[in-house]
Amino acid sequence: MIKVFSDEYFMMMAFEEARKAAANGEIPIGAVLVHKQQLLAKTHNQTELLNDVTAHAEILAITAASQFLNSKYLKDCTLFVTLEPCPMCAAALRWAQLSKLVYAAEDEKMGYMRYGNSMLHPKTKVEFGLMRNECSELLSHFFKEKRKIKQ
Amino acid sequence: MIKVFSDEYFMMMAFEEARKAAANGEIPIGAVLVHKQQLLAKTHNQTELLNDVTAHAEILAITAASQFLNSKYLKDCTLFVTLEPCPMCAAALRWAQLSKLVYAAEDEKMGYMRYGNSMLHPKTKVEFGLMRNECSELLSHFFKEKRKIKQ
Repeated sequence: MIKVFSDEYFMMMAFEEARKAAANGEIPIGAVLVHKQQLLAKTHNQTELLNDVTAHAEILAITAASQFLNSKYLKDCTLFVTLEPCPMCAAALRWAQLSKLVYAAEDEKMGYMRYGNSMLHPKTKVEFGLMRNECSELLSHFFKEKRKIKQ
Repeated sequence: MIKVFSDEYFMMMAFEEARKAAANGEIPIGAVLVHKQQLLAKTHNQTELLNDVTAHAEILAITAASQFLNSKYLKDCTLFVTLEPCPMCAAALRWAQLSKLVYAAEDEKMGYMRYGNSMLHPKTKVEFGLMRNECSELLSHFFKEKRKIKQ
């Protein structure tokens, strides 16, 4: 059983957001932003719906959480996200001085780690690998189905 | 005299946006997004007003222009911006597959060029240096005044 307010609990919630994205034809990536143990934002990728490349789950989560906290700095906040953030999102998290980032699956092709850890704020702690398989399988399945439709 | 629809004309417009930012206590950076010769967005940095680190002039311009074009790809679009974009904005411009970027002043400390040209889309043409002095002086003056207030 998953313990309430554990990392698994919040990553499961991000995974559910990713599934919602898939159901809407969006690339299935979900994010959850937590302040201490309080949930501030649950978001998923909405680039298709909003016709906007900046509408990644992480950017939407930063904007929502900043409104809630009335602060542009996300002190004592943890972002749980189902895929390694892209450079746009990592650099946004740097500006926000996020305290902790937990991501599930690595993204060798488009992830921020191509440019190294300096993309994030020096204060930001990073963990990854939690629910890696579930989150990456959801993505592979989505793209496989998409290719089928195109054929 | 500045020719209508020339690069100078649009950069002057971005500079005016940067001045608006300064007047509102925001870091003075302005942007203008143009599709062929049609103006789609005039924006300035609003991170303080919106309490949101993602509210850079470039991000606001991308979102506004995408709404107007009803497309998340900014084909045949040029972004004029008074300062070299940060990695967040450069990576957003990469996702949008922007055709051309024109920036005024370089930003050695926070600009995307620390990570090299691959932050932008391979299709994006880049020019810089137009109105460099005016745009960088506006920034220096803003920070000098800010330091005075703090003392």
